[in-house]
Amino acid sequence: MAEWAQLAYLKDTQVNISSEFSIIKKYLSGIGTSYLNTNGINLAGGDDCAVIAVNSKLLISTDTSVAGVHFLKSMPAESIAYRSVATALSDIAAMGGNPVAFNLSLVMPKFNPDWMKAFRKGLQKISKEFKLPLIGGDLVKGPLQISVTVLGKPEKKILLRSNAQPEDILCLSGALGSGYIGLKEYKRSGELNNKTKPYLFPSAQIDYGRIIASIASSAIDISDGIIQDLSHLVLSSGVGCHLDLEQVPVADKKYSKQCLEFGDDYQLLFTVPPKKLLALQAKLNSYKKKCHTIGVMGGKKLTLSNNKGSIKNWDHFQ
Amino acid sequence: MAEWAQLAYLKDTQVNISSEFSIIKKYLSGIGTSYLNTNGINLAGGDDCAVIAVNSKLLISTDTSVAGVHFLKSMPAESIAYRSVATALSDIAAMGGNPVAFNLSLVMPKFNPDWMKAFRKGLQKISKEFKLPLIGGDLVKGPLQISVTVLGKPEKKILLRSNAQPEDILCLSGALGSGYIGLKEYKRSGELNNKTKPYLFPSAQIDYGRIIASIASSAIDISDGIIQDLSHLVLSSGVGCHLDLEQVPVADKKYSKQCLEFGDDYQLLFTVPPKKLLALQAKLNSYKKKCHTIGVMGGKKLTLSNNKGSIKNWDHFQ
Repeated sequence: MAEWAQLAYLKDTQVNISSEFSIIKKYLSGIGTSYLNTNGINLAGGDDCAVIAVNSKLLISTDTSVAGVHFLKSMPAESIAYRSVATALSDIAAMGGNPVAFNLSLVMPKFNPDWMKAFRKGLQKISKEFKLPLIGGDLVKGPLQISVTVLGKPEKKILLRSNAQPEDILCLSGALGSGYIGLKEYKRSGELNNKTKPYLFPSAQIDYGRIIASIASSAIDISDGIIQDLSHLVLSSGVGCHLDLEQVPVADKKYSKQCLEFGDDYQLLFTVPPKKLLALQAKLNSYKKKCHTIGVMGGKKLTLSNNKGSIKNWDHFQ
Repeated sequence: MAEWAQLAYLKDTQVNISSEFSIIKKYLSGIGTSYLNTNGINLAGGDDCAVIAVNSKLLISTDTSVAGVHFLKSMPAESIAYRSVATALSDIAAMGGNPVAFNLSLVMPKFNPDWMKAFRKGLQKISKEFKLPLIGGDLVKGPLQISVTVLGKPEKKILLRSNAQPEDILCLSGALGSGYIGLKEYKRSGELNNKTKPYLFPSAQIDYGRIIASIASSAIDISDGIIQDLSHLVLSSGVGCHLDLEQVPVADKKYSKQCLEFGDDYQLLFTVPPKKLLALQAKLNSYKKKCHTIGVMGGKKLTLSNNKGSIKNWDHFQ
């Protein structure tokens, strides 16, 4: 009879759980626990599934961030964690929703306590910012990457990308290119400063999405670059668009082409019926949010006013 | 922008959709579409999030499968797809739930049409088997791995792993080691046959979980090996267990130690109050399901009757 004395129940010190589960317990548990009840989470972590009781429709989206593709391995783990969740949250923002909880799957090549501590810090930071509990996931050995599934509750109206109408005005929540400039500056300085912050800790436009949800006709978040993402909106809505690239604000005019091409900005691109534009701008203004009008829907194609030459956005397989 | 483009209207040729989205459209769209309505999915693919309207609690679980860790790169893509979803579904089974939908994040180093075609076939196979629509996800370039998030509806009673009581009988849904034997045989023959099938296309015990949900006191699925997973059940429930390893059925007695250690079997390990054991066995029998009684809960530790020497189960970081 072999005795599993280690698994003695109750006190941590008595329990020699295997390291995989010790890591989960130490670094990936208890994140956003105080938001569980308010957000309708009945059970989080410690079982085969999490259990959610939300009396509404639920939004769900998954976003995977791979080292060397979506972030640099050398970046602070705090930023890697934060931005992996932020990019997933951006999809909730684009539907005008309120984040409820997230699941996280972390694949990493080896265990480094300092890295894990910083990673946890990044999770805590974004969890606190959006009152968002981590409700489960898994921890796996392999090439570094993070897959995040976010759940959200929609506002009364769900903002689709398929509902833009002819004559609707195309709007943008903020300047593009701060991701590009941030990464460029981070590669140079390796520091967290005003320029690198938008890349290291991008802002999911959750508030913005909620503000426009009832007025805008359609929306999408810009992750792959404005042309790429606008063409999704155009295709989904079945209506063309004339985009005036000269009206698109960029983070740094010296690099305006790169700012338009790079993506990783997580601004919202949305359409609004012309009659509602002023009301929307006034509403956004009252929240101290900007609204840039950059084009108009109509026709069957996406056309550009552009003196920047061909713009090519992000694509994994081209 | 994470969810998948259905790219409905307008012809592809009119807009230069990037290949990433063409791949999604051709290989990852339209899987299980006929189950969307019945399963309460309002919107799947083609927007930033999927929208779910389920009038019940919701189960959610994420499972990531990495090439070289959870599967061999050389395995048929059909199997890689199928088993990535099956292992995630196994968590729904362990809660006694009914799968509703899944999200899939595919990370792959390059695009190979034949591989993608086979991968799609595997997704279609499991989607059909469990009447489960694919509602979104993303496609990313990087080291091969698949992250699957499954959603499920629980039965009236949710089967937790934390509710085992002293004197409950510990039961197992089927023999362990078919995963081990299957991989061993696959490495030898590279073929799909009766021996390799349980590894290449593992069965998520969804029906079994639903049958036992109202009677069992606790359950967990065995993915990491019986000792590892039983110790989670013991720790969560705060009650010890005596496990008689001699009573645990194995796929091949010649390799009984490996069968107990390897994991990857996705059988259910569960407890039942002694008074309800006969009723449960009769119920399972009526569904032509087996039930192996292998231990009894009690005390504060996990103890083993064992003449196989020390058993060590799967751990990513040990």
